[in-house]
Amino acid sequence: MTKPRGRRPGHADTRAAILRSALELFSEFGYDKVSLRAVARAADVDPALIHHYFESKADLFSRSVLDVEINAERALQEILDGPVEHLGERAAASFLATWQAPGARERFIAMFRAAVNDNGPRRVLVEFLSREIFVKVVQRLGLPDPATRASLAVAALLGIVMARDILAMPSLTSLKDAEVIAGLGRVLQQHLVEP
Amino acid sequence: MTKPRGRRPGHADTRAAILRSALELFSEFGYDKVSLRAVARAADVDPALIHHYFESKADLFSRSVLDVEINAERALQEILDGPVEHLGERAAASFLATWQAPGARERFIAMFRAAVNDNGPRRVLVEFLSREIFVKVVQRLGLPDPATRASLAVAALLGIVMARDILAMPSLTSLKDAEVIAGLGRVLQQHLVEP
Repeated sequence: MTKPRGRRPGHADTRAAILRSALELFSEFGYDKVSLRAVARAADVDPALIHHYFESKADLFSRSVLDVEINAERALQEILDGPVEHLGERAAASFLATWQAPGARERFIAMFRAAVNDNGPRRVLVEFLSREIFVKVVQRLGLPDPATRASLAVAALLGIVMARDILAMPSLTSLKDAEVIAGLGRVLQQHLVEP
Repeated sequence: MTKPRGRRPGHADTRAAILRSALELFSEFGYDKVSLRAVARAADVDPALIHHYFESKADLFSRSVLDVEINAERALQEILDGPVEHLGERAAASFLATWQAPGARERFIAMFRAAVNDNGPRRVLVEFLSREIFVKVVQRLGLPDPATRASLAVAALLGIVMARDILAMPSLTSLKDAEVIAGLGRVLQQHLVEP
């Protein structure tokens, strides 16, 4: 006897269906424009089920598109927690740690290449970083122009990735992590914290 | 009667042969590793002829690969000329002006895409910028680590290009030139001038 399959799939199936639909929608429309309600509709599940399996839109995104566990809320807290004059450094360190998680670098570089070439997933990763981390940092600090500041911060990350990991410029690949964190940290500090 | 063609081509032919060989060699080996002597050999002309047609390696590069006239020596002078506390801003303005010269933006974006995808012209443009502009700026200022500083400055440019011109992040495309120059200028100031 085979189990009936259909509208009410089992747990693993439901979660997988949500992940598949999320990947498709985020890839096509980017991070900002996709709602959890739209993912639920595409996966043919009750919206409440998404909240059952995933903590937040950010969580669903990182598990579906990045296939990496990124706890955006925790990263945000770690960046905000501590003296504000070292905030940029903490943000740089947090980015580097995520980047260097097992499997993450390859996946991120593939997304970078896809963003340069395709029209599909163009902005999905930068929208995620901007929306879930940098805009919130600036808002918590109560500073003006969060969107512009966040975009400049994202641009700084993209530049380092391009120069160091894709073009492999020798004077950057030879830097120690601490030196990258210091250099990138100063720039993030400027964009995110300074007046 | 047809003119004989061969080892000693006419002026236009010689210049074109040099440009062709330069484009091939720079694309394959990058900016740093190609000597004018190697270009002369590949084009089957006397090295002195290259100096007859082109001011410098930088000039040959910008005319062959970029197909844009960039006077690297003049750009360098403009960046160095003036109060050192606004050097980063002048560098950002100089970059933006070059970027926005007729035809340049399209060509640079194509090179950016090629660098992300191919193994050939990967670093050619960044090596040029680094070697002919940023390293020299840091050296003239007598500061340490010119190669690292120059690479971080190049990374900053790449990030802005990626975020603004390739990913077209709305909060960056909506910025006025003066705002980009201010934001990018502060970062370049940090990498190139600050201790």
